[in-house]
Parts: sequence; structure tokens; C-alpha cells
Amino acid sequence: MNQLIIDDAVERVRAALETGRVDDAISYLNTLHPADRAETFADLETEDQHELLPRMDAESTAEILEELEDEDALAATTHLSSAQLADVLDEMEPDAAADILGDLSPERAASALAEMEEADDVRPLLAYEDDTAGGLMTPEFFALRESMTSQSAIAFLRAREPDAETPYYLYVVDIQDRLVGVLGLRSLIMSSPGVLVSDVMERDIRTVQAGTDQEEVANLMTKYSLLALPVVDADGKLVGVVRSSDIAHVIEEEATEDIHRLSNISSDGGDLGPWSPVRTSVQRRLPWLYINLFTAFLAAWVVSQFEATIAQLAVLAVFQSIVAGQGGNAGTQTLAIMVRGLALGEIEIRDIGPALLREIGIGLVHGVAVGIAVGIGAFLWKGIPFLGVVIGLAMIGNMVAAGMAGTLVPLTLKSLKLDPALASAVLVTTVTDCVGFGLFLGLATAFLPLLKPV
Amino acid sequence: MNQLIIDDAVERVRAALETGRVDDAISYLNTLHPADRAETFADLETEDQHELLPRMDAESTAEILEELEDEDALAATTHLSSAQLADVLDEMEPDAAADILGDLSPERAASALAEMEEADDVRPLLAYEDDTAGGLMTPEFFALRESMTSQSAIAFLRAREPDAETPYYLYVVDIQDRLVGVLGLRSLIMSSPGVLVSDVMERDIRTVQAGTDQEEVANLMTKYSLLALPVVDADGKLVGVVRSSDIAHVIEEEATEDIHRLSNISSDGGDLGPWSPVRTSVQRRLPWLYINLFTAFLAAWVVSQFEATIAQLAVLAVFQSIVAGQGGNAGTQTLAIMVRGLALGEIEIRDIGPALLREIGIGLVHGVAVGIAVGIGAFLWKGIPFLGVVIGLAMIGNMVAAGMAGTLVPLTLKSLKLDPALASAVLVTTVTDCVGFGLFLGLATAFLPLLKPV
Repeated sequence: MNQLIIDDAVERVRAALETGRVDDAISYLNTLHPADRAETFADLETEDQHELLPRMDAESTAEILEELEDEDALAATTHLSSAQLADVLDEMEPDAAADILGDLSPERAASALAEMEEADDVRPLLAYEDDTAGGLMTPEFFALRESMTSQSAIAFLRAREPDAETPYYLYVVDIQDRLVGVLGLRSLIMSSPGVLVSDVMERDIRTVQAGTDQEEVANLMTKYSLLALPVVDADGKLVGVVRSSDIAHVIEEEATEDIHRLSNISSDGGDLGPWSPVRTSVQRRLPWLYINLFTAFLAAWVVSQFEATIAQLAVLAVFQSIVAGQGGNAGTQTLAIMVRGLALGEIEIRDIGPALLREIGIGLVHGVAVGIAVGIGAFLWKGIPFLGVVIGLAMIGNMVAAGMAGTLVPLTLKSLKLDPALASAVLVTTVTDCVGFGLFLGLATAFLPLLKPV
Repeated sequence: MNQLIIDDAVERVRAALETGRVDDAISYLNTLHPADRAETFADLETEDQHELLPRMDAESTAEILEELEDEDALAATTHLSSAQLADVLDEMEPDAAADILGDLSPERAASALAEMEEADDVRPLLAYEDDTAGGLMTPEFFALRESMTSQSAIAFLRAREPDAETPYYLYVVDIQDRLVGVLGLRSLIMSSPGVLVSDVMERDIRTVQAGTDQEEVANLMTKYSLLALPVVDADGKLVGVVRSSDIAHVIEEEATEDIHRLSNISSDGGDLGPWSPVRTSVQRRLPWLYINLFTAFLAAWVVSQFEATIAQLAVLAVFQSIVAGQGGNAGTQTLAIMVRGLALGEIEIRDIGPALLREIGIGLVHGVAVGIAVGIGAFLWKGIPFLGVVIGLAMIGNMVAAGMAGTLVPLTLKSLKLDPALASAVLVTTVTDCVGFGLFLGLATAFLPLLKPV
């Protein structure tokens, strides 16, 4: 839904609240889809949220909290008493409730858990980080025994409550609860009543460990087009199921994070979009502008080493940025390919050798191709033949440096267990700026007598 | 699966083929998962592919073609006769078969369709573009009538073949085949035999038109956590279903495309990853380096207007890149937020006014914050007080320009029905380079007498 429609909904709720019609505001909110309701709620002022939330029923509140970003959901819980919060958490999906409990202070989490009715569903999930298979999975799945007949399996299903959020796969476990097979609900219905589950189930089944990183889970499910992926613990015991509808959100989040980080925007602290408060936007962006400023001074220091040369031949100031800028562009290209390749599991740390050689080769090709063009352009413009040679050589060197930095920086960050997109744009352009300025102005200084117009 | 394991598989297949053991190669390939088999196949030399494909059975070939990227799949079909191709297409999912038929020459597509047994399933899909709901959907769904009882609906299902690829939702249509409701398979099983489908179905159902862009489909399914989304034609007739497992791939592709485009990499012509051939990599990257070179010369031309000033005060060459570079960084930040916001449907073209004002405001804040820092830094380093004032003022101006360009460029491209990420990084940095150099050197020229060390 677009922002204007959400804005309209916010306006209506606010108008109702201003005239004291809290119940009208709540019944209007209840006409919206849960996802739109949550967006509208998140856009309200804190005092309005505070007025609404304690008077909404637990189910509506649960739906709102499930849809909100982690930070907003945490803020919203402050409007609720421990008892109210426990009721709301009972209404939520266990994985979402566990995410919120994990973000609360230990005391508040403990008191909410103590008052919850379904604390047992949630407690095992608290052990898992939000961004792992364990944090994404739902613990609500149907587990059959190998020895059940088709008929008894169907009777078992009928005896349980249907839940639209659970994928229609049935998992089969042995007596130690270890996963041994999977069965589509439809295959079960189609089979004759006396057949054993173990005879109709599929045994070749892909699983992940509960601690597996969400990015790896997403890659696996995308690559093999899985609607659901079972999660097992260290003993092979089935502990939950990740659904493909949970994964779409993960892929989107990871991509946004990569795009932001590659563009020098911090990704800490919830969502940043075109309508985030100016304060949030500045908090995310200004620190990186300062870091960039520091590295820009570093590059400026390199230039300052050649001030005497520039004073003699001011035309060098015209061309220095071309060498540095083209290196920056080429480095950014390599970086984008590496960061995306790491995210999609196409490249790993141990591939660093061949990857580096490959990018050095590509850098040489680009350097020669761009170096010749820029050399000819500089000669035609300024009529100084050797200027073309100097700028062309500097370009080749900087393109190779760009390929090396664009490969080494993200792979090194990854090997340090850091996000390969984190700070890599700054580091790569610092290298290409310093190498670009240094090479071009250094060569120009060395060959200064030759750089006279003919 | 990582590249080294695929490389090993490629090696084994190649070794078998070299000693003429084609059947061994095929049986080894058949031990791999379809997705890995396809990756291995794609990495083989063309002559090896040619030797293998006509001797593989239609089902294995179909699995390989489904997993390959569009371009690779198209290339692989050239190894097959029309009759073989028709058999393979019959084995494929109809949406995947339609994608391939749409890429073939009209003559070859017509002859393959003529020989296909299941041409009727595929033909309606040929009308839809690959990147729309119609191109993504599967036409294989279960449609019930409102007037069926629960019992007759189950009997109807039992009479059809189960298909693991179809989501476990049952759609309910009226006598004009218009979609009127949806029913989970489990709810159907739970209901008593005599109850009418129309009494247990859910009527509030979200749909998309067949022509809806895949990015919008992905946003809708992600936002509302949908496992499946029904697709209707202009008359409301149910024509297919998009599954969430299809969407994960779309989100990944769109994100990769945005990241590549924002990093000045062309996204035309299939996948580009860390292991793509050097030739492909250069083809995607070099044209943009040339385009950037052209705009770099434009910025250099701006600098050249002030050569006389730089000749008098070479220290200006040290600082010019800081002003231009910081503007480029800030512009890239705004651009990333806008491109991502447009992709996720958070902002639309008509929001351009408020979005522009907001980014101008943020630019002013950044300009003042960075301008003061850089002004003080420049003064401390070079001991010229007015240099700090000039660089600070230029920084403020360039940050505002960055916010404007970072907003206007992607929103204008979008309003021209172009990808907002296309070329926008080049355009934004051209603006910030030209404005940055022009403002800083222009102000320095105007106040040259004041720029003497104290």
C-alpha cells in the first residue's frame, strides 16, 4: 500500500483520537489489513500509540506487533502491562513472540514468560539468534511416526487444530524424534488407508541446523525452490520448519542492507526508507560522511605532496580526478560483484587466489582500454603528447589496484566474520583515490620536463 | 553448493567424456541434485554439452533446462532436434516451458509446439512477459465449484494426480470461472462431508492481474507473507497461481540488478557473478567506464575553467576533490534510499515534492555538519582562515545539490518508465562533481585575495 493511503489512515485515526473517540479509532483500524494496520500504527505519534494499544484486544495487538519492525515492536510493548503483554505474546506466532522476548530486558522477559500460557512453545526458541534458521522457523509442524498407517495419520491430523500458517508438509520422525522423511498432505490423502507412512514418505530430505545463518537458509531455499525447509538440532531432532514466505522478507532485508552498506549508509537500528524521520536519516548517514571525510583528507594529503608540481603545471589538477574517479568506479564494480557473490554463496574465502588473479586481469584489460582513450583525449584537448602517456599509465595502474582492492577488501572482511559490505566502499575508494593521485602526480613529477605543450 | 564442488563435478564429467564414456557421465550427473546438475552442465564446454544432451532422457534434460539461466537454457536447446525439444518441453513446468518457447525463433517455437503433447497448457502462457505475474505463475491449480460439497471436493481431488509443486490451496470459481474464494486443503479435510464449499471457503482474497510486474507481485507476497497468490485475467477469471518459492528468486534477481546498476554494471544479458567469463565481465563493465570517462571529462572541463586560479594557489587542487567526493557520497546515499524505496513500493512518483524538500533539508544538515568540520580541518592544516570558509560554503551547496540530484534522477527515470537504478549513479556523481568543483573553485576565484596564509 502506498504512503498516501497510509497517511490518510493515520489522519483518520488521529482525528478520532483528538475528539476522544478512541473506540472509533480502534474499529477503523480493525477494518485495515494487518500489514497496513501495523504501518499506520507505526506512523502515529507515541502518545497516540500509548492511548490505543492498552485498549485494543490481544489478537489485534499481536497482529500489529508481528508486522512492525523489531525496534518499533519493542517500543510498542512499553505501552502494555506485563499481563497484557503476556496475553499478546500468547496470540503471536511463537517465532515472533521469541523475537520480542529476546529484545526485552531480562526481568521484563522473565515476568512476561511467567504469565504466558504458551510459554513452553516459545521458550526453546529463545536460544536462537533472530537471524538464524532457529530464529526464523516456526515450531508448529506436524510430525508423524514411521509406523503409523495412512489412516491413523489422517485421524491424528483431524484431531489437531488446522493452522493456515503451517506449510502442508508432514514430517516423519523416529522414536528419538529424529527426522527421517517427509510426506505431502495430498500424497497422504491419496494413499490407501492401510499403507504405512514409512512406505509413502520421501526419504531424501534437505535440512539445516538451527544455528545456520538466515542468508544461507535463503540461498538454499531459493536455489532448490523449496516451499519449506525443516530445521534440526545437533542430534538430528526435528525442531521447526522455515517457510518460503518467511524467506522472501529475509532476502529483501539482506539486499537492502547490502545496498545501504555499499552506499555508505549504516544499517544499524531498524528500517531506513524515504520517509524515515530526518533525525534517523542523519544518524545513519552523517557518521559515514565523517569517515569518508577522514579518508578524503588522506587522499588530499597525497595530492599535497605534489603541490610544487601542480604550481608549475596547473593542468594536472584538471586530470587528477579522472584517474582517481575511474579507479573508484572500477573498484566499486568489482566490489559489487564480490559482495553479491558472497551473499548468494557463489564465492567463498578460500577462492581468494583465483578471484584476485581474475580481477587483476580484468583490471589490466580495463586499464588499457580506458587508459588509451583517456590518453588520446588528454592529448587532443591539451596538446601535450606525454601527458597522454602519463595519464594512460596511471590509469592502468589504478585499474589493477581497483581490481585488487575490490576483491581483497570484501573477502578479508568476510574472513574476519564481518559483513563484506561493511565499510568496503570507503576502503576501496580510499585505495583508488590514493593510488590514482599518487601514481598520476608521481609520474607527472618524474617526467615534468616532458610535459610541455608541443 | 560452492564452486569448488561444482568444479569437481565438471572435472569428473569431462574425464568420462574424454575417454568416450558418455553413459558414465550421464549416470554420474543423475546422482546430483537437479540444481547442482544444471550448474555443472552450464560450466561444461559447448562440445561436451552437445555430446551429452541428446543422449539424456527428456525428464533429466527438462530438469536441467528449468534450473539454467534463460540464456544458457536457450543455448542448450540448440543441441536438440525439434522432436527431442518437444518431449523435453512436455516434461517441464508449463511456465518454464513458456519462457523457453518465448525465447526461441518463431519458426522453431511453432514447430516445437506442434509436436508437443501438452501444448494446450503452455500456449496461454506465451501471451505473458517473463517478468509479470502471468510469466511467473503456474497454470496448474485446483479449482473447485462453490456448489460442491466437502465430500465431492475430496473425491474430485483424489481423481486428479497429486503434484508436489502446487501449493496446498484450493481455489473456488463460479460458473464463469471467476475466482470467488479460497480453501486450505486441511480445512477441507476437517469439514464434515455434507458441508458446501461456499460455506467453508475464505472470500476475502488478494489477487493480481496477469500483467502485473513481478516486482509488485514480490512486494505484495512479502508484505502479506503469502505462500501463494492467485492470478486473474481482465474478467476476473482465475488463470494461474504464483508460489512464494518462485518469488524468492525474483527478489534476489531484482536486488542483484539494482546493486549492479547502482555500481555502474550493465545488467543486460544474463547473470554476472564472480566466476563469469572475463569477456562477459568486460562487456558489462567497460561501456559504463567509458560513459563515466565522458562525464569525468565534463567535470575536468569545469576544473579547467579555473586553471589560472590553481596556478596561483596550488593548494586548491588539494581540496577540490574533497568537496566533489563528499557530494558524491551524499548523493549516492540518497540515491540508494530512493532506488530501494521505489523497488519496495515505499515511494511513488507523485511523492516527488515532499521527498525533494526532505532531502534538501537533510543535505543542509549534512552540509553544515561536514562543512564546519572540513573548514576547520582545512584551516588547521594550511593556516588559511578564509580557505575554511570557502570550502565550508562549497560543501553546503554541494550537499544540497547531492540531495536534489539523488532524489530527482531516480524519480525522473521512474516517471519515464525506465529502471530508476539505470545510469543514476553516473548522473548523480556528474552533478556532484561539476557542482562541487564549480562552487569551490568559483568561490576561491572570487575571494582569491583573501586566501593568503596569515
